[in-house]
Amino acid sequence: MIIGAVEAGGTKFVCGIGNEEGVIHDRVSFPTEQPEKTLAQVIDYFKDKQVEAIGVGSFGPININQASPQYGYVTTTPKPGWGNYPFIPELKKVFDVPFGWDTDVNAAALGEATWGAAKGLDSCLYYTIGTGVGVGVFVEGKLVHGLVHPEGGHVLVRRHPEDTYEGCCPYHGDCLEGAAAGPALEGRWKVKGSELTPDHPAWAMEAFYIGQAVANAILLISPKKIILGGGVMHQKQLFPLIHEEVKKNLNGYISAQSLMDGIADYIVPPGLGDNAGLAGSLALGLRALK
Amino acid sequence: MIIGAVEAGGTKFVCGIGNEEGVIHDRVSFPTEQPEKTLAQVIDYFKDKQVEAIGVGSFGPININQASPQYGYVTTTPKPGWGNYPFIPELKKVFDVPFGWDTDVNAAALGEATWGAAKGLDSCLYYTIGTGVGVGVFVEGKLVHGLVHPEGGHVLVRRHPEDTYEGCCPYHGDCLEGAAAGPALEGRWKVKGSELTPDHPAWAMEAFYIGQAVANAILLISPKKIILGGGVMHQKQLFPLIHEEVKKNLNGYISAQSLMDGIADYIVPPGLGDNAGLAGSLALGLRALK
Repeated sequence: MIIGAVEAGGTKFVCGIGNEEGVIHDRVSFPTEQPEKTLAQVIDYFKDKQVEAIGVGSFGPININQASPQYGYVTTTPKPGWGNYPFIPELKKVFDVPFGWDTDVNAAALGEATWGAAKGLDSCLYYTIGTGVGVGVFVEGKLVHGLVHPEGGHVLVRRHPEDTYEGCCPYHGDCLEGAAAGPALEGRWKVKGSELTPDHPAWAMEAFYIGQAVANAILLISPKKIILGGGVMHQKQLFPLIHEEVKKNLNGYISAQSLMDGIADYIVPPGLGDNAGLAGSLALGLRALK
Repeated sequence: MIIGAVEAGGTKFVCGIGNEEGVIHDRVSFPTEQPEKTLAQVIDYFKDKQVEAIGVGSFGPININQASPQYGYVTTTPKPGWGNYPFIPELKKVFDVPFGWDTDVNAAALGEATWGAAKGLDSCLYYTIGTGVGVGVFVEGKLVHGLVHPEGGHVLVRRHPEDTYEGCCPYHGDCLEGAAAGPALEGRWKVKGSELTPDHPAWAMEAFYIGQAVANAILLISPKKIILGGGVMHQKQLFPLIHEEVKKNLNGYISAQSLMDGIADYIVPPGLGDNAGLAGSLALGLRALK
């Protein structure tokens, strides 16, 4: 079986082919430019690969409502050329195969649930914490779409009492993304996060915000696994700090072994590492075929 | 078709029978006492009703993991006699029919999605705001269970800048329930909520908390409808205040008609009124039969 996968990011595209075991045989990567140019490269990559389906995990916002005439479109992005762009319809003109289509973070959540840290579980959340914050939501064996699609990176959080930084989200100021994404670290501490030492107080404050959002998500959705990925989460010292914040916030209210002694196996890095996005797109393609 | 329904509350039980249209033909109500006594009344009610299935929406926490040996149990409640009580197993000894079993708020969400304000939609959230705060979560056509079950009444919220009340949740102080449930209104204003005039500043503060939790839930889950029920929400002046708070918090970030002009049809009272719980239990029974 040969399945195509497209990890369509705002900065770069990754295209690959893989099989039903999640093994990726081949991949290419190129910068995201105007959609016509970028899609020409996608088409060129897949044209002789004889894929049986293609899965696309995309930057957003996107239309994932199958009943909508704009299904498969990138919608209100400010990214030049991509606003209201018929991404999937354009690919369908060329490839007569089933297409999977979802947000990049939903794709990553599905990838982790299929072959990664949440393998065999029917629910997980996938957070990416990097340039922005996004949350993929997989519950009861399904990716959550709903009215638009989850945008859990923008939930409001309580301010850390010692934080004087106003936040960098143009919509919400100090929402989770505004307070904890990579640019917020840099805005607050005046150096890039990657230049802060592991014992810098920045990480306790970072964990304060992430732990609060994660605790609230546990209360509202009760996922079986929480996966924290993205550039900021390469700072592995964050994990134990986040575990403590989550336990502190829940304060024993949710009685589950996973949340007490087992929390280090409950809130984890991506099992697929930096492959979560591409493998997730592969999983979307596989689901479309079935 | 005759389906049995049990709305198992911490204060009172309601038992009824109804059909696949959601029409309830008969009902009885009695106080919740020790489980043996209470279940004897449930059994007595249904014993000659010839029900084809029974749905139970219960106070919690409860075990709704079908793979668990404790499936159908009430778990860690402090309510005398009910801790670790085999609620559904005891009923199954008497009635050889399929049982539906879920939290009271999940049942209400399902009832609203089947016959109420979210009829025909594949997702909705049902909040009950009364003595406590609970949230039922229905997404992609399924009730959300997960690790335990949703407990979204206890999410952390930002404090209102003029609020000096410390909150009444024994676990979290000023979480949503601690800041906005009926007892919090009374604790903060020193009179029962029902005695406050509709133009009292209490309601703006109440809407501040509810609107914040609802905005965060929209961001994380993207539900197609949000239903606000329970005793506190009998104060209808809260709805427009909550609509404004949600719009203020989202600040245009989620581009959906329902959230702009249509918000009065998006965040609504229960379509089934105070029947949401019993009708929802009926819907649980119907699902168990199918």
